[in-house]
Amino acid sequence: MKKIINKPENYTDDMLKGIYSAHGDKVKYVAEDLRCYCVADKVPGKVAIITGGGTGHLPLFLGYVGEGLLDGCGVGGVFQSPSAEQIYEVSREVEAGAGILYLYGNYTGDIMNFDMAAEMCNMDGIETRSIVGADDVNSGAPEIRRGVAGIFFMYKCAGARAAQMASLDEVLAAAGKAKENTRTVGFALTPCVIPELGHANFSLAEDEMAMGMGIHGEPGIWNGPIKSASEIAAESVDTLLGDMPLAAGSEVAVLINGLGATSIEELYILSGCVSDIMADKGIKIYRTFVGEYATSMEMMGASISICKLDSEMKELLDAPAYTPFYAQR
Amino acid sequence: MKKIINKPENYTDDMLKGIYSAHGDKVKYVAEDLRCYCVADKVPGKVAIITGGGTGHLPLFLGYVGEGLLDGCGVGGVFQSPSAEQIYEVSREVEAGAGILYLYGNYTGDIMNFDMAAEMCNMDGIETRSIVGADDVNSGAPEIRRGVAGIFFMYKCAGARAAQMASLDEVLAAAGKAKENTRTVGFALTPCVIPELGHANFSLAEDEMAMGMGIHGEPGIWNGPIKSASEIAAESVDTLLGDMPLAAGSEVAVLINGLGATSIEELYILSGCVSDIMADKGIKIYRTFVGEYATSMEMMGASISICKLDSEMKELLDAPAYTPFYAQR
Repeated sequence: MKKIINKPENYTDDMLKGIYSAHGDKVKYVAEDLRCYCVADKVPGKVAIITGGGTGHLPLFLGYVGEGLLDGCGVGGVFQSPSAEQIYEVSREVEAGAGILYLYGNYTGDIMNFDMAAEMCNMDGIETRSIVGADDVNSGAPEIRRGVAGIFFMYKCAGARAAQMASLDEVLAAAGKAKENTRTVGFALTPCVIPELGHANFSLAEDEMAMGMGIHGEPGIWNGPIKSASEIAAESVDTLLGDMPLAAGSEVAVLINGLGATSIEELYILSGCVSDIMADKGIKIYRTFVGEYATSMEMMGASISICKLDSEMKELLDAPAYTPFYAQR
Repeated sequence: MKKIINKPENYTDDMLKGIYSAHGDKVKYVAEDLRCYCVADKVPGKVAIITGGGTGHLPLFLGYVGEGLLDGCGVGGVFQSPSAEQIYEVSREVEAGAGILYLYGNYTGDIMNFDMAAEMCNMDGIETRSIVGADDVNSGAPEIRRGVAGIFFMYKCAGARAAQMASLDEVLAAAGKAKENTRTVGFALTPCVIPELGHANFSLAEDEMAMGMGIHGEPGIWNGPIKSASEIAAESVDTLLGDMPLAAGSEVAVLINGLGATSIEELYILSGCVSDIMADKGIKIYRTFVGEYATSMEMMGASISICKLDSEMKELLDAPAYTPFYAQR
């Protein structure tokens, strides 16, 4: 295992200590639990948005806590859900009088614990709504799809709407609209290693990639020889548009996301290929995001997300945001 | 070779096409040469700062071209210098009436070509100054040290000073002060692969790391079993402070830089270790930067940079900056 760590069992908490130490002006924890991650200063009267999920995907999930985005995050162990109690403690801290939106990925453990936290909040008279990201087209039918990098568009739209001091149902609607209009296809070239296991759960041959692999290493739709960036882009865009047809003249945002070990250079090569394909189809790219938005530690690979835009969503995407991990003015 | 690319020989230009396609509102190229990378809109009367170097280190070098930072970049092939002509073409484009600072890494090919470009500029009546980053303590005596991630502090201080409409010599002085006060130690856990070669130039065993390795794979000061994050931090800080002693009560900025494949989680674990050590020594960390600032494509590893601060440098570090690859408000 090639990692810069101390004891593997302390991976998550050591990481959190480093984050609080570096960014203590912007974030804090509550309930004497490092995993109850909250924005340092809440905005009275604003809808609070809380996410959560396992460690190993930075900047997902906690990296989006900050101005113009989210207010809190329940932090689980590596690839594990945070507990209902942790989500509840975060909720009590960041709720600011306008209710809470739970916005997280479509994974069974997370759903169970966020639902329990919602019940605990309701008993306290705190209103909550919930919505899950489920953008990974190759992971199945829409209702069972996993949430991956496309959740960024939900965060961005909901966060910007909340910053406008919209109501809880309006913020939920913004997240829902982003969800409806976002699709992702991902692919891996190598596995990653869970620190406490110390070895990869599976292997890919030196010339092999896995199309559709999930960010926890869930099997994809095919394994085979590594294709060129152009071929990968073409197949991915076909899959995306097969699931969400776009007429010529449509406007989209594109997110080219690195899974951890893939170089930024390669992400831009892939981005250029996607851009060429979209131009050929007469689809206008309004804004392109390239970088690491949802990773799998040191997994090699990338994902391509498309978000179909209207004028409201363009305004929300362009609104400023500022967290320790993500900045846009 | 596990990379998402098309033809290896087109790696640099395919990457550049992707960048211009994604960020055409902020950057452009001139002289019909993709590798002559310039800010889209220059600021009349401002000192222009130009950098340059080989591809394979994103966001270094071109990623720092933008508001509050740099104005242009000569882009070389993978690990190769840009040509004097390319640097000259960038210079002609971005010069805005106040002269040009060449600010780049201490590598022989780059020095030769920037010096030639400076002569070409001088013949056109454009005034230039030059300074090289040379922060990598383990690479030798101060004058022969390689420039690595610590050049970020030179970019940031010089860029902020130029944005204040300071004179060419004042901008040079800000870069020089950052240089004097910055030191870096880096270490690698894996090599990277140059696309046109298709294989790594060297190998490290499964349990092996290389302390002091350069960002092109230059040999370091020892290879041995991977140490813990705490041990690596302790040795690195000892090396840094051995070269630049800091009294208790000093204030510094810390940059924890990932070399490409190391997860953001590990960078924060390392950052926490550095923070603990500095606290023990009574050295105050004014600001911590964590992420990928200077990479080696998919090399695993990291570097730790320390920049000793005074009140002027704190103001320059805190000034806003906005490029397609780096944002700070």
